[in-house]
Amino acid sequence: MQTQVTIIGSGPAGLLLGELLTKEGIDNIVLDRKDQPYILERIRAGILESVTVEGLERVGVAARLHKEGIPHHGIELVYDDKHLRIDFQKTINRYVVVYGQTEVTRDLMEARNNSSALSFYGVDDVQIHDIETENPSVSFEINGEKKVIHSRIVVGCDGFHGVSRKAIPEKVQKNYERVYPFGWLGLLSDTPPVADELIYSNSPRGFSLSSQRSAMRSRYYLQVPLTEKVEDWSDDRFWEELSLRLYPEARKNLVTGKSIEKSIAPLRSFVSEPLRYGSLFLAGDAAHIVPPTGAKGLNLAASDVLYLADALMEYFIEHRELGMDHYSEKCLRRIWAGERFSWWMTKLLHRFDDQDPFTQKMQEAEFNHLMNSEYAIYSLAENYVGLPH
Amino acid sequence: MQTQVTIIGSGPAGLLLGELLTKEGIDNIVLDRKDQPYILERIRAGILESVTVEGLERVGVAARLHKEGIPHHGIELVYDDKHLRIDFQKTINRYVVVYGQTEVTRDLMEARNNSSALSFYGVDDVQIHDIETENPSVSFEINGEKKVIHSRIVVGCDGFHGVSRKAIPEKVQKNYERVYPFGWLGLLSDTPPVADELIYSNSPRGFSLSSQRSAMRSRYYLQVPLTEKVEDWSDDRFWEELSLRLYPEARKNLVTGKSIEKSIAPLRSFVSEPLRYGSLFLAGDAAHIVPPTGAKGLNLAASDVLYLADALMEYFIEHRELGMDHYSEKCLRRIWAGERFSWWMTKLLHRFDDQDPFTQKMQEAEFNHLMNSEYAIYSLAENYVGLPH
Repeated sequence: MQTQVTIIGSGPAGLLLGELLTKEGIDNIVLDRKDQPYILERIRAGILESVTVEGLERVGVAARLHKEGIPHHGIELVYDDKHLRIDFQKTINRYVVVYGQTEVTRDLMEARNNSSALSFYGVDDVQIHDIETENPSVSFEINGEKKVIHSRIVVGCDGFHGVSRKAIPEKVQKNYERVYPFGWLGLLSDTPPVADELIYSNSPRGFSLSSQRSAMRSRYYLQVPLTEKVEDWSDDRFWEELSLRLYPEARKNLVTGKSIEKSIAPLRSFVSEPLRYGSLFLAGDAAHIVPPTGAKGLNLAASDVLYLADALMEYFIEHRELGMDHYSEKCLRRIWAGERFSWWMTKLLHRFDDQDPFTQKMQEAEFNHLMNSEYAIYSLAENYVGLPH
Repeated sequence: MQTQVTIIGSGPAGLLLGELLTKEGIDNIVLDRKDQPYILERIRAGILESVTVEGLERVGVAARLHKEGIPHHGIELVYDDKHLRIDFQKTINRYVVVYGQTEVTRDLMEARNNSSALSFYGVDDVQIHDIETENPSVSFEINGEKKVIHSRIVVGCDGFHGVSRKAIPEKVQKNYERVYPFGWLGLLSDTPPVADELIYSNSPRGFSLSSQRSAMRSRYYLQVPLTEKVEDWSDDRFWEELSLRLYPEARKNLVTGKSIEKSIAPLRSFVSEPLRYGSLFLAGDAAHIVPPTGAKGLNLAASDVLYLADALMEYFIEHRELGMDHYSEKCLRRIWAGERFSWWMTKLLHRFDDQDPFTQKMQEAEFNHLMNSEYAIYSLAENYVGLPH
């Protein structure tokens, strides 16, 4: 098989890139290890920056997002008994949109399924070849049959555990990593959310996040030690612990119910530089991971893909390589800003058992600084809603 | 002997408090282990916030400060080859005054020497007694003679190594401490400063600070490992290392000369809570230390003393104890903000050899965040010039 761009990974990054390229007449093939139903059952983040919304609008798949997405004009931060609402509208006059990443993936997948673009799902043994040449290929197996795609460009959108990043020689890669000493236990339920806005709470029992997907679907998270197992957390235990981490007024509004999904995710900061090696480009989680505290994961992936789509258009349509040459550098500027913000939010809002008393006091002082400084609040707001693309 | 307030320590904190009390007719005695010439030879910080200037104005010893002090409307921050000027005037329309702490002490000491207020210098074996009662006393030896001062209140302004803090029972004290893995090697010289404003530079060879006391007196600092000894640093070696840590344009302006003073100071963050126990009050370095990176040490001491003077006036003149009861809490709010800022500036501007690559990248990302965010710059500026008292 022959195409212009082979895209490995059918999450929001790979699918958005596919749509952006298809729209410009650039031929591409998407492949994924998993099948579509599996991909559409993965529960992920749900906060969209305007850059992500604009990306979806550009490929014409934002209709449902505009109908069902909920604009959020602020978030609430809690530290022990101190409350702070960050008002995005009053500070920087912008907002974010709450719309599940799963729904973004669904909308993009539907658009692709309805087009003539080729995709392969449930493939095995994906291997990337000859990326240091201008004729790379990707081989894989499907239904026991071996296939090879030849293309000018290969893009790895296959996440942290995918094969793409590993195809880059170790000697040209620089990896930066921080693993946090806890994870997030998440629960999804068809219950009305505890509040209209997200509540990020650093309580003496640990962090909790109260978020939502819609007026009748809630998503809650609890900071838990990495040793915890999801099977030890009955719904009842989860609701009880969450209720202990909420402040009294919020606790009163808590409606519990049967969980639809429950899982534990570790928290990690990770960046692999550069994002390009020869004919292979990385985008999204394949190259970088943020802890979810800053709601940046999906948005950084969308941001990479928008830069990459522009670079590839420049290459295939105008035959200029400049955009591709600057792709990695351009992405990394925004990625490191997102990494900093996510790391800072994570440090601010979680309980670190291994922290010395001075560092704990610094966490409290950081929160008080936010409470007392308009500028600090503005700075948080501009990062949360998303830096300029 | 009998007085109303015994003040232990004749640095700027003790002397300012003495003047504030004397001015209101509150009788006080100051004592210090060292003699006056020794005290006036100690080289310390030199950046005054408006709260400190106002304190000196209040006791009428600001004449020389107004004549010789240099208003600074900004500072320069450097990270590798990136430059950032923080403009205090354009951002928050305020400024700081450069005037050596030693000169502040000299002005205050002169005022006290010219008044009838009693002081004892070069005393030995200072001991504090009965602070849990309303009749505390301080005993000491001078010229081999034992003396005792009885007073209603004892104030410890005797610094980190003084006896005052140790007089508070350990069980009621909470100490918070961070020792940094480096010190500052300082050099004072009668040479024109390298620039009109302070240059804080995080260079690949480590931190340097270029500062000044006047148009012909410079004060430079180099980050050095704690194992360094001042006798291993000839003037030539100092100037060479400084020059390597300056950016090219600044290096061209560097005028070297014979050092007047050279010393190494460790960097430490420290807070002891509470600042009051019974009839004993702590102020300044006796209760808290900041690394010098934020220029907060002297200013936090002045801020404590201004709160304390008000509380003591309320007590001795209006016979109300509320001010004394809230002294510790009031100070600590400002102290922790100063601790946070000093810790943050220290982390931002020094090279930490033991840092993992991710944390190093976060330092760079923090600097880039400053470069790209007006709000982050405002937040730095408002802390540097000093939070509201």
